[in-house]
Amino acid sequence: MTANQDTMIPALLAAKKAKDMSFADLGAKLGRDEVWVASLFYRQATASADEAIQLGELLDLDAATIAALQEFPTKGSLDPVIPTDPLIYRFYEIMQVYGMPLKDVIQEKFGDGIMSAIDFTLQVDKEENPAGDRVKITMCGKFLAYKKW
Amino acid sequence: MTANQDTMIPALLAAKKAKDMSFADLGAKLGRDEVWVASLFYRQATASADEAIQLGELLDLDAATIAALQEFPTKGSLDPVIPTDPLIYRFYEIMQVYGMPLKDVIQEKFGDGIMSAIDFTLQVDKEENPAGDRVKITMCGKFLAYKKW
Amino acid sequence: MTANQDTMIPALLAAKKAKDMSFADLGAKLGRDEVWVASLFYRQATASADEAIQLGELLDLDAATIAALQEFPTKGSLDPVIPTDPLIYRFYEIMQVYGMPLKDVIQEKFGDGIMSAIDFTLQVDKEENPAGDRVKITMCGKFLAYKKW
Amino acid sequence: MTANQDTMIPALLAAKKAKDMSFADLGAKLGRDEVWVASLFYRQATASADEAIQLGELLDLDAATIAALQEFPTKGSLDPVIPTDPLIYRFYEIMQVYGMPLKDVIQEKFGDGIMSAIDFTLQVDKEENPAGDRVKITMCGKFLAYKKW
Amino acid sequence: MTANQDTMIPALLAAKKAKDMSFADLGAKLGRDEVWVASLFYRQATASADEAIQLGELLDLDAATIAALQEFPTKGSLDPVIPTDPLIYRFYEIMQVYGMPLKDVIQEKFGDGIMSAIDFTLQVDKEENPAGDRVKITMCGKFLAYKKW
Amino acid sequence: MTANQDTMIPALLAAKKAKDMSFADLGAKLGRDEVWVASLFYRQATASADEAIQLGELLDLDAATIAALQEFPTKGSLDPVIPTDPLIYRFYEIMQVYGMPLKDVIQEKFGDGIMSAIDFTLQVDKEENPAGDRVKITMCGKFLAYKKW
Amino acid sequence: MTANQDTMIPALLAAKKAKDMSFADLGAKLGRDEVWVASLFYRQATASADEAIQLGELLDLDAATIAALQEFPTKGSLDPVIPTDPLIYRFYEIMQVYGMPLKDVIQEKFGDGIMSAIDFTLQVDKEENPAGDRVKITMCGKFLAYKKW
Amino acid sequence: MTANQDTMIPALLAAKKAKDMSFADLGAKLGRDEVWVASLFYRQATASADEAIQLGELLDLDAATIAALQEFPTKGSLDPVIPTDPLIYRFYEIMQVYGMPLKDVIQEKFGDGIMSAIDFTLQVDKEENPAGDRVKITMCGKFLAYKKW
Amino acid sequence: MTANQDTMIPALLAAKKAKDMSFADLGAKLGRDEVWVASLFYRQATASADEAIQLGELLDLDAATIAALQEFPTKGSLDPVIPTDPLIYRFYEIMQVYGMPLKDVIQEKFGDGIMSAIDFTLQVDKEENPAGDRVKITMCGKFLAYKKW
Amino acid sequence: MTANQDTMIPALLAAKKAKDMSFADLGAKLGRDEVWVASLFYRQATASADEAIQLGELLDLDAATIAALQEFPTKGSLDPVIPTDPLIYRFYEIMQVYGMPLKDVIQEKFGDGIMSAIDFTLQVDKEENPAGDRVKITMCGKFLAYKKW
Repeated sequence: MTANQDTMIPALLAAKKAKDMSFADLGAKLGRDEVWVASLFYRQATASADEAIQLGELLDLDAATIAALQEFPTKGSLDPVIPTDPLIYRFYEIMQVYGMPLKDVIQEKFGDGIMSAIDFTLQVDKEENPAGDRVKITMCGKFLAYKKW
Repeated sequence: MTANQDTMIPALLAAKKAKDMSFADLGAKLGRDEVWVASLFYRQATASADEAIQLGELLDLDAATIAALQEFPTKGSLDPVIPTDPLIYRFYEIMQVYGMPLKDVIQEKFGDGIMSAIDFTLQVDKEENPAGDRVKITMCGKFLAYKKW
Repeated sequence: MTANQDTMIPALLAAKKAKDMSFADLGAKLGRDEVWVASLFYRQATASADEAIQLGELLDLDAATIAALQEFPTKGSLDPVIPTDPLIYRFYEIMQVYGMPLKDVIQEKFGDGIMSAIDFTLQVDKEENPAGDRVKITMCGKFLAYKKW
Repeated sequence: MTANQDTMIPALLAAKKAKDMSFADLGAKLGRDEVWVASLFYRQATASADEAIQLGELLDLDAATIAALQEFPTKGSLDPVIPTDPLIYRFYEIMQVYGMPLKDVIQEKFGDGIMSAIDFTLQVDKEENPAGDRVKITMCGKFLAYKKW
Repeated sequence: MTANQDTMIPALLAAKKAKDMSFADLGAKLGRDEVWVASLFYRQATASADEAIQLGELLDLDAATIAALQEFPTKGSLDPVIPTDPLIYRFYEIMQVYGMPLKDVIQEKFGDGIMSAIDFTLQVDKEENPAGDRVKITMCGKFLAYKKW
Repeated sequence: MTANQDTMIPALLAAKKAKDMSFADLGAKLGRDEVWVASLFYRQATASADEAIQLGELLDLDAATIAALQEFPTKGSLDPVIPTDPLIYRFYEIMQVYGMPLKDVIQEKFGDGIMSAIDFTLQVDKEENPAGDRVKITMCGKFLAYKKW
Repeated sequence: MTANQDTMIPALLAAKKAKDMSFADLGAKLGRDEVWVASLFYRQATASADEAIQLGELLDLDAATIAALQEFPTKGSLDPVIPTDPLIYRFYEIMQVYGMPLKDVIQEKFGDGIMSAIDFTLQVDKEENPAGDRVKITMCGKFLAYKKW
Repeated sequence: MTANQDTMIPALLAAKKAKDMSFADLGAKLGRDEVWVASLFYRQATASADEAIQLGELLDLDAATIAALQEFPTKGSLDPVIPTDPLIYRFYEIMQVYGMPLKDVIQEKFGDGIMSAIDFTLQVDKEENPAGDRVKITMCGKFLAYKKW
Repeated sequence: MTANQDTMIPALLAAKKAKDMSFADLGAKLGRDEVWVASLFYRQATASADEAIQLGELLDLDAATIAALQEFPTKGSLDPVIPTDPLIYRFYEIMQVYGMPLKDVIQEKFGDGIMSAIDFTLQVDKEENPAGDRVKITMCGKFLAYKKW
Repeated sequence: MTANQDTMIPALLAAKKAKDMSFADLGAKLGRDEVWVASLFYRQATASADEAIQLGELLDLDAATIAALQEFPTKGSLDPVIPTDPLIYRFYEIMQVYGMPLKDVIQEKFGDGIMSAIDFTLQVDKEENPAGDRVKITMCGKFLAYKKW
């Protein structure tokens, strides 16, 4: 995290809290998914000029913040190599436990290549369930085949 | 990976290859999802006696392997802390880039807690697309709220 | 530890010290176990509005602190990967020495799965003993069986 | 893990499996807790001559194994610094999340010092519960105060 | 590196040496660049059936090796996190010294996104020079823009 | 990154942004490649007195900054050992996947030695392509043969 | 090192230097060994109220420092995992070179257990010697035998 | 540990065990301290020809082992950076907790320099004590002052 | 690097720059080698009172700095475990590539022991050469033989 | 170290020992410095055909070894990141303590650039001294200036 992000991220989160808006509320206004909006707040994504201005109006942001939201960030939001927060760690554990199985199933379906993490979307849904609600996460990325030359 | 898994995993993969069956084929026979079957092959999951025997018949496994599939494995299929294989690394990158955003969105929807990686399912689908097929991954885990005492 | 926690934790501990109250005293007032109260102070747990207000009155906290106690924290209270403080290190050593034995005994009793660290409680008792008092720690977490799909 | 332990541990586990005995069964025969017996199997504890001989008879062990069980092991049963197995990782997470709170509560009760991990016992119980059984772990170690000189 | 790669890579290199062929020679036969052929030898790329058979004929490979060349490898050819071999380390140093400058220049030209390492080619040329020959490396990867959703 | 670089780099980038100049614009003025100019901004390269003064005039830099640009920096622009920013990580991945193949091909062409990262240039070009533009990176370094003595 | 220790330790060392007293001088006043006094200065030990007040008088400490000396510190005085200071590194080297031999000799004399680092004293003496003075370090800790249960 | 040490160390320990001799017994025969003898067994020290032959006679060693004991070993007997064995870890903890205090006390007595770990001896004594026997460790190393030039 | 060194080192370097003196100039004044003077500036060495005063006069240092130069520093001037600066990294590479060869040659000449890094000098010379000037580094340390006891 | 080097290095050292030749003896025969010969033995350098054949005759090497000595090795002779052997560690310590001073002195003499570790020689001499013999190490590498482009 750059020094800049160090102060900008809490400021954005505080502005959102002062307006008592959720990421879903902001996403509805901007016409974007709530996860993408959250990644904009954590400086992992870049706003267009329109998006930055609209967000500025919704949250009373100053001009410097509106400009900064349009810059291309240096990405990676986690300090330690292996995250200590239990919610985030579970995704690391999923990669540890299901990484090789996922690789084999994707390659059986698509051939030698990867799922893009750039041409990629991510959604979170709440699945109500009498035995306890469930978190449903849907990742969707373009398949990229290894090029030969 | 234990020494045992070191020899058992390639043996299972070779047996499957000799029969020319995909994980989807095996899943259809066992009534299980292909990702779960792949995680059984990588010794990240435990077969019931019925499942182990049925798999043994499908792949001509010996009795020791059929017994070993029913044991509770020591899990974690990746050697290095940060995976070097590009397909698997992308999931690490997704956690780096979208970890904090995901945490906030889940907590806005559910409160303080986590998505279980144990009471959890994982599916891979191929989404055909003229601009390039897409990999769709669906994770679904029970929400667990932090208990107070 | 976030920058925010960096200043909030010592402030909370100082407020408690100024009132000369132990975590057990505070727990008795709040109707909560002292370990849970201590984890609230270290920003590893989330207070309800009632709990935060009551704590605010007991310790003369300002409104911003009372609000912050109700936010969902990013967890993990230890900086280095392997803790250097001797009291905390002993728990790491217990995991090193007794980790695999524990795993086997739990799985013999319950099957393939884990003890939840979320639906979980932790208590500390003093066991008086003429040969030297003993620390008794009781952990109690829901067993979660691996789901198949 | 030494090369010696590398072959001795699976051999012991296989001998136990061949006799279809649980650690609780073996513990009842030896008059020891099942966790201690499991830590003997993982070469984290030392058997007396009597215990080793009795175990040898129960499991048809050869003389070299019976002798080796009486040697003082080099301890530490986990390869990676942070364990990847989900069951064992939860204990690391508990230390991350509750380490500082535990330290404060223990020191409020006992003063400056530690809970011994040597003069120490560890038990696992199954707590039946209609909402899902619970794992109950009880650690009990002598308090050691820091000496001044 | 998997155990399989551990024996297969030296065997392939020995077969090539026995025939006294360079990667450029093999590339000319296969109609592929020498770097791609070398990455096939190090099991970082996948041969088509035709390519594997042709290589088998050129180097007298057995059927198992010909089959293995068509499998999708687990990639990553370097053991230590930071490579110790001086030739390879220089590429790590280039990333350390020129990483941020490269990022800024690429983003000035293309916007927020990355150069693909999958839809990617890599060539090595020798540039003769009286003051000392120069190594010329040309990397060419598709630009992938970050998707919004 | 030294404390000095910590404040100097953002200041240089802000000065450039205020003038709305790209690295290519600045390179054209200085008669230097844009990548070299960017590495000067990130304090990985040293300006001559003329270059520093000219840059100072273009960007309204103060005398201290103009002097500092002529000092020999402590190099290495990335904090974590393995970079988390996806654009930069791809270069690490290229080294992981193609490191050994590159080594072999370079050595087949040149003998035992390395490509210098000091007597070295690096260029970025945009290759327009209807299937998606491509990033072309050209590295060119002097070959240094291992000396015997 | 906590932020608090970060300012308190240099302040204590400066106060001692202003009075031109050695740790041996302070130890003689307090009736404590100089090493223990030094570990109190580095916030690795806890003073009694009497000791803190007496030290406060000797060094003109303020009330807050006198109170802080009586708190139980989070211990561990070295930042990097492997110390870089040559004097301290030698103790790490001694553990590397003589760790296993020490373990065997202690266990031959005492059985399976450890030397306590809590019920423990440490002294430094100067042994004059015409061939060069020698540093003599005497560690003395209670033997703790592994408990069985 | 080299492959050679990997087989030689257990062989030496087994030979000693077959003769039922302690390191103290062997030290008495050789006229050396038991810790030095143990470090010879762990290949951290070099025997003279006389010592190696005498040891060979005492333990029925073959000629290759007798020769190998006279070679200069590559030292360092611990695999992980931070030792997991509790007995050895305590020495790491002592360095963490008392490292800076020790440094200051040694430098107050001797000036800027170090205690040699080469011109160095190490002894273990058992101090009988009704409250529990104590392990006494005496280290004695030549003081080396930093040279100026 | 301590916080103290963090501000003192740049201040010393700035004072030297203001006087436009090289380390060689300062060394000539002090009667010391330029490398030793540079290590004094980086707080890796200790000045005598005379040296500190003389340096204070040459560079207009204040009394606090003159006093601080006479204190025994905590040594180790590099932050990351493996240095990223290319000039310094080359010394790490030399140790990687030539470490074992050096060890064997030194031991063939001297027996089992080490070259002291304390009773040690280090010089840098410029060797003019029409094919390119060469850096000549001469290290000279006392041989220390392993003591037996 | 590759598997190949793993067996080849001890075999070469054993052949040399069987002939009772030092590296200096071999260097005299080959017309090469003893350090270079030692680095050839540790597979850090490449022999010409003549050198390999001559060495083969001197040490009765088989044809495969003679061929292997002419291959370009993957370099880096130390397993752990920070070496544990005390002789080799001292060079790491020298880099830690004198790295930044060396950098400044070299750059004052030569400008911005590095000492090559490729166009580089390394010699070991014994300096007899009544106060204890000294190890003299002379490194000599071409200065490489940073290129601008």
